[in-house]
Amino acid sequence: MLGLMQDKPLLVSSLLVHAERFHPESEIVSCTCEGPVVRLSYRTMAERVRRLARALVSLGVTPGDRVATMAWNTHRHMELYFAVSGIGAVLHTVNPRLFPEQIEYILNHAESRALFFDITFASAVANLRDKLPAVENMIALTDAEHAAGMPESALIYEELLAEQSAEPYNWPQFDERTASSLCYTSGTTGNPKGVLYSHRSTVLHSSMACQVDGLQLNRRDTTLLAVPLFHVNAWGIPYASALCGAGLVLPGPKLDGKSLFDLAVAERCTFSLGVPTVWLGFLKYIDEDADADPAMLSLERVMIGGSAAPRAIIKTFDEMGVHTIQAWGMTETSPVATVCNLLPRHAELAGEGKYDVQVLQGRPVYGVDIRVVNDDGEALPFDGETPGDLQVRGPWVTSGYFRGEGGDVLDRDGWFSTGDVATIDPDGYVRITDRSKDVIKSGGEWISSIDLENAAVSHPAVVEAAVIGRPHPKWQERPLLIVVGKDGAEVTKDAILDHLKPLVASWWLPDDVVFVDDLPHTATGKLQKMKLREQFKDYELPA
Amino acid sequence: MLGLMQDKPLLVSSLLVHAERFHPESEIVSCTCEGPVVRLSYRTMAERVRRLARALVSLGVTPGDRVATMAWNTHRHMELYFAVSGIGAVLHTVNPRLFPEQIEYILNHAESRALFFDITFASAVANLRDKLPAVENMIALTDAEHAAGMPESALIYEELLAEQSAEPYNWPQFDERTASSLCYTSGTTGNPKGVLYSHRSTVLHSSMACQVDGLQLNRRDTTLLAVPLFHVNAWGIPYASALCGAGLVLPGPKLDGKSLFDLAVAERCTFSLGVPTVWLGFLKYIDEDADADPAMLSLERVMIGGSAAPRAIIKTFDEMGVHTIQAWGMTETSPVATVCNLLPRHAELAGEGKYDVQVLQGRPVYGVDIRVVNDDGEALPFDGETPGDLQVRGPWVTSGYFRGEGGDVLDRDGWFSTGDVATIDPDGYVRITDRSKDVIKSGGEWISSIDLENAAVSHPAVVEAAVIGRPHPKWQERPLLIVVGKDGAEVTKDAILDHLKPLVASWWLPDDVVFVDDLPHTATGKLQKMKLREQFKDYELPA
Ligand SMILES: Nc1ncnc2c1ncn2[C@@H]1O[C@H](COP(=O)(O)OP(=O)(O)OP(=O)(O)O)[C@@H](O)[C@H]1O
Ligand SMILES: Nc1ncnc2c1ncn2[C@@H]1O[C@H](COP(=O)(O)OP(=O)(O)OP(=O)(O)O)[C@@H](O)[C@H]1O
Ligand SMILES: [Mg+2]
Ligand SMILES: [Mg+2]
Repeated sequence: MLGLMQDKPLLVSSLLVHAERFHPESEIVSCTCEGPVVRLSYRTMAERVRRLARALVSLGVTPGDRVATMAWNTHRHMELYFAVSGIGAVLHTVNPRLFPEQIEYILNHAESRALFFDITFASAVANLRDKLPAVENMIALTDAEHAAGMPESALIYEELLAEQSAEPYNWPQFDERTASSLCYTSGTTGNPKGVLYSHRSTVLHSSMACQVDGLQLNRRDTTLLAVPLFHVNAWGIPYASALCGAGLVLPGPKLDGKSLFDLAVAERCTFSLGVPTVWLGFLKYIDEDADADPAMLSLERVMIGGSAAPRAIIKTFDEMGVHTIQAWGMTETSPVATVCNLLPRHAELAGEGKYDVQVLQGRPVYGVDIRVVNDDGEALPFDGETPGDLQVRGPWVTSGYFRGEGGDVLDRDGWFSTGDVATIDPDGYVRITDRSKDVIKSGGEWISSIDLENAAVSHPAVVEAAVIGRPHPKWQERPLLIVVGKDGAEVTKDAILDHLKPLVASWWLPDDVVFVDDLPHTATGKLQKMKLREQFKDYELPA
Repeated sequence: MLGLMQDKPLLVSSLLVHAERFHPESEIVSCTCEGPVVRLSYRTMAERVRRLARALVSLGVTPGDRVATMAWNTHRHMELYFAVSGIGAVLHTVNPRLFPEQIEYILNHAESRALFFDITFASAVANLRDKLPAVENMIALTDAEHAAGMPESALIYEELLAEQSAEPYNWPQFDERTASSLCYTSGTTGNPKGVLYSHRSTVLHSSMACQVDGLQLNRRDTTLLAVPLFHVNAWGIPYASALCGAGLVLPGPKLDGKSLFDLAVAERCTFSLGVPTVWLGFLKYIDEDADADPAMLSLERVMIGGSAAPRAIIKTFDEMGVHTIQAWGMTETSPVATVCNLLPRHAELAGEGKYDVQVLQGRPVYGVDIRVVNDDGEALPFDGETPGDLQVRGPWVTSGYFRGEGGDVLDRDGWFSTGDVATIDPDGYVRITDRSKDVIKSGGEWISSIDLENAAVSHPAVVEAAVIGRPHPKWQERPLLIVVGKDGAEVTKDAILDHLKPLVASWWLPDDVVFVDDLPHTATGKLQKMKLREQFKDYELPA
């Protein structure tokens, strides 16, 4: 027997409709590639989104079509979020920092029919033009005034909008499981793979983001979106902001420390999200610039994800009165799966004791189930000690990659293997100890490369560190620590090993430490160990 | 094109499964009808729920069957919430305070096949026994020790559980639109009507309750559940608590001021919910008892709904450092539809200015759309001034009553008419001015009976007030104010009218004031104006 409740699909369009009706004055502040800062409200944005929806339809975009973007965090990019999914098409955000060949691969793999791009990418797009047979329309995200230098065939976003009406739009109502957006994984461990979100998964994930035990996003927030709109839907924040009416500040192309700091101060941002690299830049700027006083900030909390949140960042923020929320997730999990919120019994913790909890990747929010398994697929205990392959399932977890890449990715109980190695403690806190491909197997036991890296960067003269396994005649594999030192700081292998000794088990101590000028990163700022292993393939550990 | 996200139905069973896995230690503290206080965790409750699920199946309960309860707020009643819905049957909570004929009507209308009852209702149930042809099993919510005095044929809850295994249970997975529970309206304006919730509506509503802009329920809460489990699923809190792992304190049969106060103090409750009547009793106890010091409370916020939250309650709580969240809703809306949270621009408000906002019924949360319409069904502006019929729609709003009562209740755009008269302001704040059946039409203009009642109870000597319309030769209808005075206080008609003069428009002033010892209430504590109009049907206004 079915219940007698209204049959309302959870659609992306309903988020903006709600925001326009009930949060019309909440503000979206956008830096642009052209320079000026643009201020909109959900009311004015909703009007523009309706124009855009009509423009898309008039360009021949139909339900299911992929519409690609190569764009920074601006209001126009956000408008595409709502208009493209709103008409039933699929928003395909492409990371413009990828290599041209990767971009070409992804756009062709997705068969995107239209490509919206920021003017900063005009020449990149012009070069790609002939290699993208599926793309019928290229639209520059700008106005007539700034159209000079755009590829000849490109349409101009603001012109398209101006041609259309902002009148009420009958957003189509359809099955909430319909695809809404497409995002490719970062390509840290191989070729990027497409994850196809649905309206349902997007709305459920947004609802979680607004929960107290989620990301606490709420009507009183003004969020500085330091995570790109092309990085897993900016962690769902554009949708969740519309859901609860939170204000949004979009930094445009500039994610450097000074730009973010100035924006956070000027717009009194209360919340922000980004990968560790972004926060390193932010905190470095505050540290080094005499004018940048953290007391000028209104920040209450920052969310860090994408890679492990370094303890040093958590501590520095804490000392500034800013609470760090670490979260773990993947492109495949929309992305937020676990969030490191504190339990009642942590209420009295302060300083190091609190950081001990905050460095964990967090606990699953409702909607996400997790477990760790051994090589035989048997579930391991939640004891905080036994590492295993982390698996996940739930309504915003992928059931397979776009166009069948990678084949069947779920086991028969619906578990998705994340490729991360983790422990889970009795409260459900996850600790990611490694990627399964990066784990170092020494004499049959596992050494966590992440733990070693964290210990290394806690040395004041170390900026970044990477640990990879190298073949060893007796132990099969032993760790090699590769370090980027601070400018001007003198530091030796022995100093670093001495620093590590009290922090890790003695048999974890790296067999060697090498110094480099920089480490290879992916387009989303992650350590590219694949490349590092390649670089060091001829290196031999000291005997 | 469908997205590639996992197909996980939103089921009530998944809430408890999540709580057991990730909040195993959160506590449920339950007063019982037998006397002792019982303490469980989600882990132990989940074990008992599995036993109960097996017991239900062994009693022959099948998917879709209604299973009725007549019970207070105890752990056993909460276990039924999860077990009954978990196996795909429908939990039908009956308000035991209704008249026996109403209970009989409702149980027969629902055709409930089993009836679980608290020992306090043993004789009521025994008397009903022969009038309930559909009921096959009656189960006393107690153990063998307390089985004396139970109807002969009654089974004993704890015995049933003891016979079953607590082993892992394969909760059936089914369409999330399946009916999960059934609750009848309060019967304030006519016969109670059945509202049939689904698993989907229940989980979506729970998710809202955990949002910052919802009820802010979270893992750090210990909630004193002062709203009965038979009153619209206790406003969804049992489900939402499992979702986020909040602790729950169940007061059993005692909802008097002292019992609630003692419990809130002993269990350090941070949150509580109830109708205004309950809070009046609670605050009266604190006011009158020298031992009851509000400083002993850990309460951070209370939610008030079911009837308008009186300003005096909001103020008294505020002075105790407790924040009041008013919410508006109906049995038909699961029930929470609008929540009175403050906007950023209210941040600086304190005292009366803040109460001016808190007395409003709140703004819709995402998932709920509202509007007010005139008699022709045309939408009225959100101007905070123009009253109209309040309509609502969304995934946790009813699409029709159980067994077709009342026929088609939605208009062609899916709007449900609430029977409430309201204004909506530009921010979306709803102000309920009346029930449409209670509105007083004087010379073509509407007088709000609720506003007049609120103004009257702000007089220190007035305990409760009701306003009804009486026929008038010139103005069609004029207001009559009916007042319950404070014990021992001397107060006259003129004193009350003088008090009202500065508070309401002069043409709203009641034509007469009558004093009574008490006013008629429904089983959920609401003013029964239907009955009052009946009582005063021969009364004539002074010329
Ligand atoms: N808080 C965190 N702590 C540690 N690692 C994290 C955290 N958040 C995310 N990660 C890592 O990022 C991964 C998800 O990243 P993403 O989906 O962007 O692509 P990728 O895994 O880096 O690339 P690819 O799957 O293409 O190799 C996780 O599997 C995990 O390894
Ligand atoms: N915060 C509030 N302020 C004012 N009125 C409220 C509030 N919350 C609920 N109500 C009133 O309660 C009604 C819903 O109550 P409920 O569903 O329990 O049954 P009822 O309407 O009293 O009974 P019936 O529908 O059987 O006549 C609303 O329609 C509204 O009139
Ligand atoms: Mg990955
Ligand atoms: Mg009603």
